[in-house]
Amino acid sequence: MRPSSSPSEALLRGLSGTPDVDAELGDRSLLQAMLDVEAALARAGAEAGLLPASTADEIARQCRADRYDPAAIGAAADAAGNPVVPLVRELTAAVAEPARPWVHHGATSQDVLDSALGLVVVRAAGPLLAHLTGAADAAARLARTHRDTLMVARTLGQQAAPTTFGLKAAGWLVALVQARTRLSGVCAALPAQLGGAVGTLAAYGPAGSVVVDRFAAHLGLAASPLPWHTRRQPLLDVAAALGGLLAVTGKVALDVGLLAQTEVGEVAEGGAGRGGSSAMPHKRNPVDSVLVTAAARRGPGLVGTLFAAAGQEHERAATGGWHAEWEPLLDLVHLAGGAAARTARMLAGLEVDRPRMRANLDASGGLLLAEAVAARLAPALGRSGAHDVVRRAAGRPAFREALLTDPDVRAHLSERDVDAALDPAAWLGSAGELVDRALDLHREARP
Amino acid sequence: MRPSSSPSEALLRGLSGTPDVDAELGDRSLLQAMLDVEAALARAGAEAGLLPASTADEIARQCRADRYDPAAIGAAADAAGNPVVPLVRELTAAVAEPARPWVHHGATSQDVLDSALGLVVVRAAGPLLAHLTGAADAAARLARTHRDTLMVARTLGQQAAPTTFGLKAAGWLVALVQARTRLSGVCAALPAQLGGAVGTLAAYGPAGSVVVDRFAAHLGLAASPLPWHTRRQPLLDVAAALGGLLAVTGKVALDVGLLAQTEVGEVAEGGAGRGGSSAMPHKRNPVDSVLVTAAARRGPGLVGTLFAAAGQEHERAATGGWHAEWEPLLDLVHLAGGAAARTARMLAGLEVDRPRMRANLDASGGLLLAEAVAARLAPALGRSGAHDVVRRAAGRPAFREALLTDPDVRAHLSERDVDAALDPAAWLGSAGELVDRALDLHREARP
Amino acid sequence: MRPSSSPSEALLRGLSGTPDVDAELGDRSLLQAMLDVEAALARAGAEAGLLPASTADEIARQCRADRYDPAAIGAAADAAGNPVVPLVRELTAAVAEPARPWVHHGATSQDVLDSALGLVVVRAAGPLLAHLTGAADAAARLARTHRDTLMVARTLGQQAAPTTFGLKAAGWLVALVQARTRLSGVCAALPAQLGGAVGTLAAYGPAGSVVVDRFAAHLGLAASPLPWHTRRQPLLDVAAALGGLLAVTGKVALDVGLLAQTEVGEVAEGGAGRGGSSAMPHKRNPVDSVLVTAAARRGPGLVGTLFAAAGQEHERAATGGWHAEWEPLLDLVHLAGGAAARTARMLAGLEVDRPRMRANLDASGGLLLAEAVAARLAPALGRSGAHDVVRRAAGRPAFREALLTDPDVRAHLSERDVDAALDPAAWLGSAGELVDRALDLHREARP
Amino acid sequence: MRPSSSPSEALLRGLSGTPDVDAELGDRSLLQAMLDVEAALARAGAEAGLLPASTADEIARQCRADRYDPAAIGAAADAAGNPVVPLVRELTAAVAEPARPWVHHGATSQDVLDSALGLVVVRAAGPLLAHLTGAADAAARLARTHRDTLMVARTLGQQAAPTTFGLKAAGWLVALVQARTRLSGVCAALPAQLGGAVGTLAAYGPAGSVVVDRFAAHLGLAASPLPWHTRRQPLLDVAAALGGLLAVTGKVALDVGLLAQTEVGEVAEGGAGRGGSSAMPHKRNPVDSVLVTAAARRGPGLVGTLFAAAGQEHERAATGGWHAEWEPLLDLVHLAGGAAARTARMLAGLEVDRPRMRANLDASGGLLLAEAVAARLAPALGRSGAHDVVRRAAGRPAFREALLTDPDVRAHLSERDVDAALDPAAWLGSAGELVDRALDLHREARP
Repeated sequence: MRPSSSPSEALLRGLSGTPDVDAELGDRSLLQAMLDVEAALARAGAEAGLLPASTADEIARQCRADRYDPAAIGAAADAAGNPVVPLVRELTAAVAEPARPWVHHGATSQDVLDSALGLVVVRAAGPLLAHLTGAADAAARLARTHRDTLMVARTLGQQAAPTTFGLKAAGWLVALVQARTRLSGVCAALPAQLGGAVGTLAAYGPAGSVVVDRFAAHLGLAASPLPWHTRRQPLLDVAAALGGLLAVTGKVALDVGLLAQTEVGEVAEGGAGRGGSSAMPHKRNPVDSVLVTAAARRGPGLVGTLFAAAGQEHERAATGGWHAEWEPLLDLVHLAGGAAARTARMLAGLEVDRPRMRANLDASGGLLLAEAVAARLAPALGRSGAHDVVRRAAGRPAFREALLTDPDVRAHLSERDVDAALDPAAWLGSAGELVDRALDLHREARP
Repeated sequence: MRPSSSPSEALLRGLSGTPDVDAELGDRSLLQAMLDVEAALARAGAEAGLLPASTADEIARQCRADRYDPAAIGAAADAAGNPVVPLVRELTAAVAEPARPWVHHGATSQDVLDSALGLVVVRAAGPLLAHLTGAADAAARLARTHRDTLMVARTLGQQAAPTTFGLKAAGWLVALVQARTRLSGVCAALPAQLGGAVGTLAAYGPAGSVVVDRFAAHLGLAASPLPWHTRRQPLLDVAAALGGLLAVTGKVALDVGLLAQTEVGEVAEGGAGRGGSSAMPHKRNPVDSVLVTAAARRGPGLVGTLFAAAGQEHERAATGGWHAEWEPLLDLVHLAGGAAARTARMLAGLEVDRPRMRANLDASGGLLLAEAVAARLAPALGRSGAHDVVRRAAGRPAFREALLTDPDVRAHLSERDVDAALDPAAWLGSAGELVDRALDLHREARP
Repeated sequence: MRPSSSPSEALLRGLSGTPDVDAELGDRSLLQAMLDVEAALARAGAEAGLLPASTADEIARQCRADRYDPAAIGAAADAAGNPVVPLVRELTAAVAEPARPWVHHGATSQDVLDSALGLVVVRAAGPLLAHLTGAADAAARLARTHRDTLMVARTLGQQAAPTTFGLKAAGWLVALVQARTRLSGVCAALPAQLGGAVGTLAAYGPAGSVVVDRFAAHLGLAASPLPWHTRRQPLLDVAAALGGLLAVTGKVALDVGLLAQTEVGEVAEGGAGRGGSSAMPHKRNPVDSVLVTAAARRGPGLVGTLFAAAGQEHERAATGGWHAEWEPLLDLVHLAGGAAARTARMLAGLEVDRPRMRANLDASGGLLLAEAVAARLAPALGRSGAHDVVRRAAGRPAFREALLTDPDVRAHLSERDVDAALDPAAWLGSAGELVDRALDLHREARP
Repeated sequence: MRPSSSPSEALLRGLSGTPDVDAELGDRSLLQAMLDVEAALARAGAEAGLLPASTADEIARQCRADRYDPAAIGAAADAAGNPVVPLVRELTAAVAEPARPWVHHGATSQDVLDSALGLVVVRAAGPLLAHLTGAADAAARLARTHRDTLMVARTLGQQAAPTTFGLKAAGWLVALVQARTRLSGVCAALPAQLGGAVGTLAAYGPAGSVVVDRFAAHLGLAASPLPWHTRRQPLLDVAAALGGLLAVTGKVALDVGLLAQTEVGEVAEGGAGRGGSSAMPHKRNPVDSVLVTAAARRGPGLVGTLFAAAGQEHERAATGGWHAEWEPLLDLVHLAGGAAARTARMLAGLEVDRPRMRANLDASGGLLLAEAVAARLAPALGRSGAHDVVRRAAGRPAFREALLTDPDVRAHLSERDVDAALDPAAWLGSAGELVDRALDLHREARP
């Protein structure tokens, strides 16, 4: 079997990913990462005294991706079940005769591919984290600007009580900051893989631990206490961090999409020329919201796949667990990249309609403040007595008037008291303080 | 955002797919399918009297994928959220002036993409079903050839009782035949999508149902009673059929891998030069088994993703449900193709070691026939009495000798009786008959 | 280890299930189903001439669940890994001495549990399908009553064009009818399981196929061509049907929840005293919508789990595949029951606010009919010319006035023409016809 | 709808869980946790000066689960959609009149249920972590005892090279230790939930942050910077930790099951009377291995469900995200408990057959040392030359003899050299050192 062409990478794939992250995920990048691993292996071996430094140099010199043809290597991979075997064959042929015995010395295919995929994840995390920082910064701007912008809070799809748009944005901000912290922590802890054929480092004799440490250092990856060929927690951490990132951006995009509904109309995505519909000129579709929520819907299945793949046999997986990880892992990074980039763009360009927020808040004529009114009546009437009175008033057409003409209310509250209770700005509790706390947290977490 | 390059399509993707199926899933194929949909729409409109036949011809003439650049269309898709909008723009520009108003007439982007993806699935099912037929035929050959080849059956990983390799292969055969029947049934029922902007077919006035019927007929897809923009059962049927196929091939590959374990050694994958290990010349890895089980591990997450994506709002999805389907659907077809092709190759080349099967069956010195011995003693001793006697003998080193020297046994069974009970060929029940039934079923189900 | 108490069955479980379906899923029901299987096995053996009919009668007499203690059997199950082993021990002890050898004769634990779970599914499908019928009937009433009730269609969360509430309900109806058809088909095809220890039916000698056929007939389950101990397609079919049901009811509930949003307000769930909030007297939460969508969110993970569990080794699963199926299968039935019952209640009690539907449709001042206006202008101006003119008018404050004062419009359309184009009832295409078709389909599919 | 009975809790549920962990998950425990939350809320309010301490005492006095009927509360939950509403009603009725307004003051149902579920998780983690410690200790004993016990390492199901059983156990140990560290860290960071109706803490006026801090302190949970009603990262962390635990224990159980295969026979589960088969007296099923791998197969779907449920709208979820979390979260804890307890039992009782390990290692007549032989020849013949020579010898019947009679070998290696190369104990690389490192890590991580 020859390697297969990829599905619809130009037509569809751009809609779920973003170019700079995807650039780190392509054939050329993975190939270079595999070669970087081979070079690090040679250098580590030299530093452990197993081979001459000049031999390591000779090997490293050939570890440039542009010297190899991914399609040819992919085609040859079918016979071995992975692309490392043919790559090592080509690299061995490329180096000078005396260096050949030292190419891939003491390593197994999985050492190279696991470490290379780790490198790819870490490298892709560069632009990915930058997009996440962009999204967090934009959320912070919204939280600061709209710290006191009144809007209605909604629970179970129903208008519930006043809040501020600043607090909503602060919730997004905290979630984005935590997702960034988590992902960068996971990347910093991602270990290099080196165990040799069965995890004993047999070929290195007593030099095993030196080789492993130098190898990890050259790659800039963490060192693992033991080889982790079939102990996949490091990948589960990556999966959980990326899955969490998709969940977080998905929640932000979900809120934006709901606020952008025609009947709500409190925000709109910016971006001239985006989201238009030729057939329906009045429509402006929240395209980024849709694409980010779409990416988020694909996260759980991929996370579940990586957790399921972790059941791997003995010293190296026998029933496909390892092979099943590669593409889902790259897909998760790809989706997380697209979601982070689009969330950043969506929040940076978000058009906020304050008057509409206020109008929606006022539309129910003060009913949303029923709890505030009851709170003022409770000391006199008891909580359930107060709720009874308020509920009675809420059942009549005009809530404020109903309150003002209710003798049980008026026995305890003046018109001014009623109006104070119906002022949404006075029923915000700790909203402002919580926004400030989120902004502090963002400041402290700056990368 | 420009469209992103795909991840590692040459290095890794060939290991999970197969070329002929994947060829139907690429950009060019999807683009052609989208254009076929536009052509069918124009012809259907002409047949309903909405536009002149010559106009439909003019549109259809431009519906050739080689006239368009997938990369450019993909790049332009970001603004609209799907590739149909820019493709329609380019197609409209390509046709002669008078035909332009009739391009994409009355349709919405989802009509085109849903129908095109349906076409892609049906077209990819061609080679996919052929591979499945190949796998079933190979399983049938194994079942026929080894109808009476004795081997040990294993339950919970333990040797349990005699069976035949033919019956094992018959189980694979029935599963493969059912998977093929299911997939071809689903493809035959896959409906075209046409509803217009909101599912009312508003732009066609009273001609709606004629247009829809002619449209489906031109595409060779089924007609749907109502548009199914947000009623995704047809896609769930595809997902379940492909997921079932992956489960079935995964089970076959799992059995092969287990039988190929060094300590079992009853089968080996054929194929010169495949599965070798440079570091370990004695090893012959069951590469196809590994790659098929790897594909099978990715099925459940993708099936789950498509079921989760089916929660779509109102007349067209608002929170990414539709957009989330595209790539997972194509990924499922891709994986199913690779799994079917490799299963066919694996079974066709399977090397079966009858002596090893027999040796493994005999290794426990007749203990596997304990139930058969007990069955012969039960009429005299009662079932639990018989089991007690057999268990006592089984606890001693040599089972046959223990039986022959046990007075409770010898009171009822002669040496000849004991040997007859210990003959695995006499304790196969309906195995042969079941193999024949599976072969009949395969014959009747021939496509 | 003793059996564990269940988690929060009274506090939480009622919110995801429904009593009549759940009654079929409890310990007592499963125990009875297991005993029904043992009785059927005895009768089948008698009919095949293996044991006397009176012995089968004696066994069947003891096959009553109230004679056994589920807790004791559960406690004893730990040593064997399944509850069949201790149940058979107790059943054997319960029957008269001469019948004992014939209890569970020739069967394996999996034969009993697979067949019993099949019975449980079929029995639970009784009330489940009744709820689904109730939901479909309610959807049909809504479709009929509101065949011509105008409302706005929404795509990507944005108001898009006119439709009818009848067409929306018709979409629900078709989906519910298809889900019912699918589930009842799957139940009718669900096969009994009987293969003996390793699938050869060894203990029955030449009588195997007779025993299997009579066994299935006694249970009212389908007969399988071969034992399906490790060929789990029948369960995947159940999983897909139940998962589809959850997706369908989830979609209906999602639409209801969105229509019930305060800012939309087009429907409300009925039911006095339901959905109220003590703190917020104005709120009326769409509780059934929330609970049905909650159930729907749990479907994909369970479907995925059952597909993943299907990778089972050799003659009986060695790595937990079979054991992993039991609770997820019952959970799926439980959730589907709750979702079907609540959807029926939700639709039956749905309060529809026609004036609000009309008000929302009119709120954009005719903009939703832009496509209709363009369609009237297209013959004269060409499609893109027409769109340009309409887009220009749509950019001005009052769309109708903008059209009436636009010379390019007035050159081709009279005021009456413009008003006709802006009449939503005239831009419904095939909506009524599609509703009628859905109602026909419902009538034809009546169970 | 009345609350439904639970499915098969006695018959099946004990096989996936363990009693002490499950005891923390039942109705009574959840009810007590909800009441503990109400008591903490009252005390926190008193400490913030909102109500008298004596009132808080009065409320706390009624917060004992044995005063309430879970079934009645569950039955009443249907109308509200959660059990908090009826519980608060009953608690309010139970306290003395003057305290009533202060029951549940300023909180929303989700505050109570989220915090209560957090308590339940933390409380269940007590016995769960103890089982995990037991499993780790047992793995450590195996690693120490078998530090130098030779066995064959297997990759892709094939015998590959020597290793030690100590290193295999060390790999299990590291995985178990990391899973424990991760879970206890997640529990320590699990935040209390308190935000009031919409997350602003409106009812507490300026005292909000004091109430929140005191509330968390009383519960022994972490404080959250902001309410996390729709920011579900804390639950995703729990899900990932429990999912990782299931993956880890599943991997250990998978290895045990594979080693216990009849044809391998290197380990057996201990436990008199467990895993026997009445029909097949020779069989000893690895029941714990099967049950732990079964639990592990259910993890990914539940993890995926919790990640999918995290897409929650606005201030509180509108489409079931929150409600969908409850049972899957408890199911994950239940499964993790069962898996940890059974892994501890399985490893503590593991019977290790050293002679069989050695016999399996020797079965291929030294072929597994081919790499070691090649390593000795490489300095003279170059790596590929050495491999050619070794491969040639490996193709002949008796590897040692083939080597000894090969002139290319004998030109460089004496008989003693060959035998040294064929000594598996000399080709273990860093195995012993890695075992020691794992044991150190275990010692340092002691809880």
